[in-house]
Amino acid sequence: MFDEPIERLVEYFRSLPGVGKKTAERYAFYILENDRTKAENFAKAIIEVKDKVQLCKECGNYCSSELCSICRSRNQKIICVVQEPKDIIAMEKVKSFEGVYHVLFGCINPLENKGPNDIRIKELLARVSKNGVQEIIMATNPDVEGEATAMYIAKIMKPLGVKVTRLAQGIAMGSNIEFADEVTLEKALRQRQEI
Amino acid sequence: MFDEPIERLVEYFRSLPGVGKKTAERYAFYILENDRTKAENFAKAIIEVKDKVQLCKECGNYCSSELCSICRSRNQKIICVVQEPKDIIAMEKVKSFEGVYHVLFGCINPLENKGPNDIRIKELLARVSKNGVQEIIMATNPDVEGEATAMYIAKIMKPLGVKVTRLAQGIAMGSNIEFADEVTLEKALRQRQEI
Repeated sequence: MFDEPIERLVEYFRSLPGVGKKTAERYAFYILENDRTKAENFAKAIIEVKDKVQLCKECGNYCSSELCSICRSRNQKIICVVQEPKDIIAMEKVKSFEGVYHVLFGCINPLENKGPNDIRIKELLARVSKNGVQEIIMATNPDVEGEATAMYIAKIMKPLGVKVTRLAQGIAMGSNIEFADEVTLEKALRQRQEI
Repeated sequence: MFDEPIERLVEYFRSLPGVGKKTAERYAFYILENDRTKAENFAKAIIEVKDKVQLCKECGNYCSSELCSICRSRNQKIICVVQEPKDIIAMEKVKSFEGVYHVLFGCINPLENKGPNDIRIKELLARVSKNGVQEIIMATNPDVEGEATAMYIAKIMKPLGVKVTRLAQGIAMGSNIEFADEVTLEKALRQRQEI
């Protein structure tokens, strides 16, 4: 349909998550219609993110120095454990959390042949013994794999005397009870709070 | 929120049409999570589209050689006039059209100080006198400016004996009469066809 260079750019845009053919074409045309300097800077930004961004030595979050800004400035005694760096973005919207994070890069998933040694549990253990951690908050996803990972970590932390907690599960704010699924409702009922 | 290189890439993704903060973050994380070669090729594709893509000498469509593939292979006697190169993509979905295109790059718009000399009308006249064109199909947008541009081109083509037609206006296939606006319904009524 298009000439080769355009077609190729459309394909790269299409590889982005959630982008279909039409959206990718719109993006490619935007690049075509805009000036060259902007396109060059865009291309440079893509390369630079691969050149300069590394994983924080401590928590595994993406950052451009040895330690990320969260690890440098916050309370090391409370660690919130997440599956992926993008989960940190979500958690950080909760302005009141003052602890640090630990990215597992996945979770225990026998179907994908991922065991405890394939995610960053060893590193978590090292942090716990080094920094005198008081609490580990498990913020893995509320599915079978996320639950199993949380349980596993709770089990290995027990002998070390570290408190392990899990994000509460229940009905989401702004949702409707009417449309909530039974598993969520059951969790919400079981974890009900006195008011 | 993010370190500088990530933040910058998010900003570039955000500048794409229809992309908000969250989508841009997803795209940036996709680049972060994928391998370096892919990111490099993506960046290269952006630059290459600016390096190699030019405007077809004849019709003004984007292409990577002097003449686009449509101008090289199709019937030069029927020209479909569009406002932007992306309109060609839409029109090309109609597989039965065998003519060529002419991109105006805009339309006559007094509010934006755009007169007949600011869009590619001169080039259209040159093509008409050179190639013995039989029909010009006006496929400018069905709004005030697009209509005015179609009228203007029809007027200047009249002395040259070229038939100028306009895409039919009416209710869109798959839509509902119930929700059609009155202008569209009026056009549909006036241009009604015998069955």
